[in-house]
Amino acid sequence: MFQSKLFSRTSREAAKEEKSANAVFLERAGFIDKLSSGIYSFLPLGFMVLKKIEGIIRQEMQGIGGQELLLPALHPKLFWQETKRWDSMDDLYKLKEGEKEFALGPTHEEIIVPLAKKFIKAENDLPLYLYQIQTKFRKEKRAKSGILRVKEFIMKDLYSFHSSQEDLDRYYEKVKRSYFKIFQKVGIKKQFLYLTYASGGSFSKYSHEFQALTPAGEDTIYICKKCGIAVNKEIKSKTPSCPNCGSKNFEVKKAVEIGNIFKLKTKFSEPFGLTFTNKQGEKKFVLMGCYGIGLGRLLGAVVELNNDSKGIIWPDSIAPFNAHILPLQSSNKAAAKSIENYSKKLYSDLTKAGISVLYDDRKNKAAGEKFVDADLIGIPWRLVVSEKTLEKQMVELKERSSGRIKLLKKREALNFLKKKYVK
Amino acid sequence: MFQSKLFSRTSREAAKEEKSANAVFLERAGFIDKLSSGIYSFLPLGFMVLKKIEGIIRQEMQGIGGQELLLPALHPKLFWQETKRWDSMDDLYKLKEGEKEFALGPTHEEIIVPLAKKFIKAENDLPLYLYQIQTKFRKEKRAKSGILRVKEFIMKDLYSFHSSQEDLDRYYEKVKRSYFKIFQKVGIKKQFLYLTYASGGSFSKYSHEFQALTPAGEDTIYICKKCGIAVNKEIKSKTPSCPNCGSKNFEVKKAVEIGNIFKLKTKFSEPFGLTFTNKQGEKKFVLMGCYGIGLGRLLGAVVELNNDSKGIIWPDSIAPFNAHILPLQSSNKAAAKSIENYSKKLYSDLTKAGISVLYDDRKNKAAGEKFVDADLIGIPWRLVVSEKTLEKQMVELKERSSGRIKLLKKREALNFLKKKYVK
Repeated sequence: MFQSKLFSRTSREAAKEEKSANAVFLERAGFIDKLSSGIYSFLPLGFMVLKKIEGIIRQEMQGIGGQELLLPALHPKLFWQETKRWDSMDDLYKLKEGEKEFALGPTHEEIIVPLAKKFIKAENDLPLYLYQIQTKFRKEKRAKSGILRVKEFIMKDLYSFHSSQEDLDRYYEKVKRSYFKIFQKVGIKKQFLYLTYASGGSFSKYSHEFQALTPAGEDTIYICKKCGIAVNKEIKSKTPSCPNCGSKNFEVKKAVEIGNIFKLKTKFSEPFGLTFTNKQGEKKFVLMGCYGIGLGRLLGAVVELNNDSKGIIWPDSIAPFNAHILPLQSSNKAAAKSIENYSKKLYSDLTKAGISVLYDDRKNKAAGEKFVDADLIGIPWRLVVSEKTLEKQMVELKERSSGRIKLLKKREALNFLKKKYVK
Repeated sequence: MFQSKLFSRTSREAAKEEKSANAVFLERAGFIDKLSSGIYSFLPLGFMVLKKIEGIIRQEMQGIGGQELLLPALHPKLFWQETKRWDSMDDLYKLKEGEKEFALGPTHEEIIVPLAKKFIKAENDLPLYLYQIQTKFRKEKRAKSGILRVKEFIMKDLYSFHSSQEDLDRYYEKVKRSYFKIFQKVGIKKQFLYLTYASGGSFSKYSHEFQALTPAGEDTIYICKKCGIAVNKEIKSKTPSCPNCGSKNFEVKKAVEIGNIFKLKTKFSEPFGLTFTNKQGEKKFVLMGCYGIGLGRLLGAVVELNNDSKGIIWPDSIAPFNAHILPLQSSNKAAAKSIENYSKKLYSDLTKAGISVLYDDRKNKAAGEKFVDADLIGIPWRLVVSEKTLEKQMVELKERSSGRIKLLKKREALNFLKKKYVK
């Protein structure tokens, strides 16, 4: 992709009200655009990253038997009255259409349970795992921290349906492992990722959150120094000791919740009468679990955990491009032509090999400005072509994360990147 | 995929109020589920088809230089006040959040124009082509005909930005050709597809609709018998002759609009002050075009145009699976075991080769029922394994569209399907 054609523009300044790294860098580097408090657009660069995160999540969901569907955002009032959440949920957007009233779905239990009821009859129909990647809405009074807390967001929500508590427990552990994989795949390093005990509501003792340590996070978690499991504020206020190992020695940290898993048991099966006939011919309530990941928030959290003073440092797995070619200007016309030719050949060799490349073809930008922008955007590998590198018929390869620089022949650079990115 | 595990169930009866083929078959075959008037869920089978349509559209959009982004559904009131459409658009869903008011986007000119304004400065920044595939909302009082006319729908909306009328005209023709490709790729045959003159509003003489002939359509079009171009009702009432060739000889047909393209010119650039500085240093308004395709409606239209009395006949390009294996029951235990073994081997050979297969492993279904369901679901190739076919160590291959049947060896069936579906 030619950078001059990319619908994106880096800027030196961040919007005044923004303080968190994800908001500042993602906006300055042209990944997102703020429309209003808690409402963002994903620009092409941001959309590319979002799609990669979506791909990683989708693959994992299919790996644990999930079937993808797509449920509506407009929810007729009566479904939310069944569970009494029409009145009890403060953050529900409501709208009218003549006599009819709708909620904008902030979650989908009210829709998926009556739907599942049409299909689940016998024990044979269970277990069942359904998920979607879909836009949700929540009246968010505390919208802030860039895309960490917003009013409209894309969420992966998985719902599982079981015939027994044991089966639910087993699958819950499976999703837990799958979530660890997803978060590490997208670039949340293990040492920043904490499985955290949270309230289980009226039906379960505990639920679990996946918390990523960052000062930008709005949650406070208490990490057990003995076993490494964390508890959230609500649990800590109720129990002085670790629910996992009993230790009372905690470390307090700021974190952002990037996922949560919850044993709903029969909380929603009961109001909607979601039952199955077991092998003994008895009607039983279906047991459920639900499992969520907010894609935009996860993207923001990755940026919070992968940046330096200069900008974003994208993990390989979700970077918008693998490599960034920077041909530098030269006042010498012949040299300028050589730089352009060499760079274009490099670009075409790399893209033909299946490496995705952003090519900084902007004519009016000085070297310094190109460097600053490249660091801000944060593509893993920067390839500089200049008069100096061309003296040796070489290209300068720099790794964004380590800052390490190497001079390589075009073919060597190609082979190095091919090895990394082409399967 | 094992059919017994698929979240979907065929039914013999359609919901009473449904009359159009898309609604009846898509619901009966388990592709969609109606939540409320004009509000549908896409079940796994329907979601697979939707994703294939999305893939075809995305590829075409990228081919004509489109950059994908994702704009929000929640639109602050002030953007819609700028264009005076807050009050003039009847079908706008509005909602409140304290003092703030929002519209749920039925289209995105009000959002993308102010966004483009942040990036477009000079003539060099043009042309620019931005698109998204995103959920839109419209208060639809006449919601009917299954998924042809709904309140919540996924739309591909492309917006183009130009420095001159000539450039807009050129790109408009390019999109026109691209739309013909998309519609034919997803299975709308050429003879049912009509480019149709429609009103251009206050800024252009004409816009164009892409109309697909079907009795389920709610539009009436007038096809010029001389040149084959059509005009819609509004245009026909104003001009008695074909705007393309001048002929007055028309044929009247029912059709459904599956796409529309529109030269907006400066309709939205003016209220939002979207300008660029041309090479002479003058400020000029950016010229715009917009181009829409409703994905769900297109899916519905494909079904309207590709069915028979038994069910859907999916075009290869968007079928949820390439092949459908039906192992039949046998009361002879040894034969039953052979049928199962042969079918499972066939399934694993096909899937390993990269052919997507639905395997009807349902134990309690008679042959007749399996046949009826397979015809209803409409996968292009049906493979029956029975006592009879196994006498010859063969499998029966049936093409859904032609009804043609052949007996083949397993290897022959594999090679035949591989040739068709594996690139």
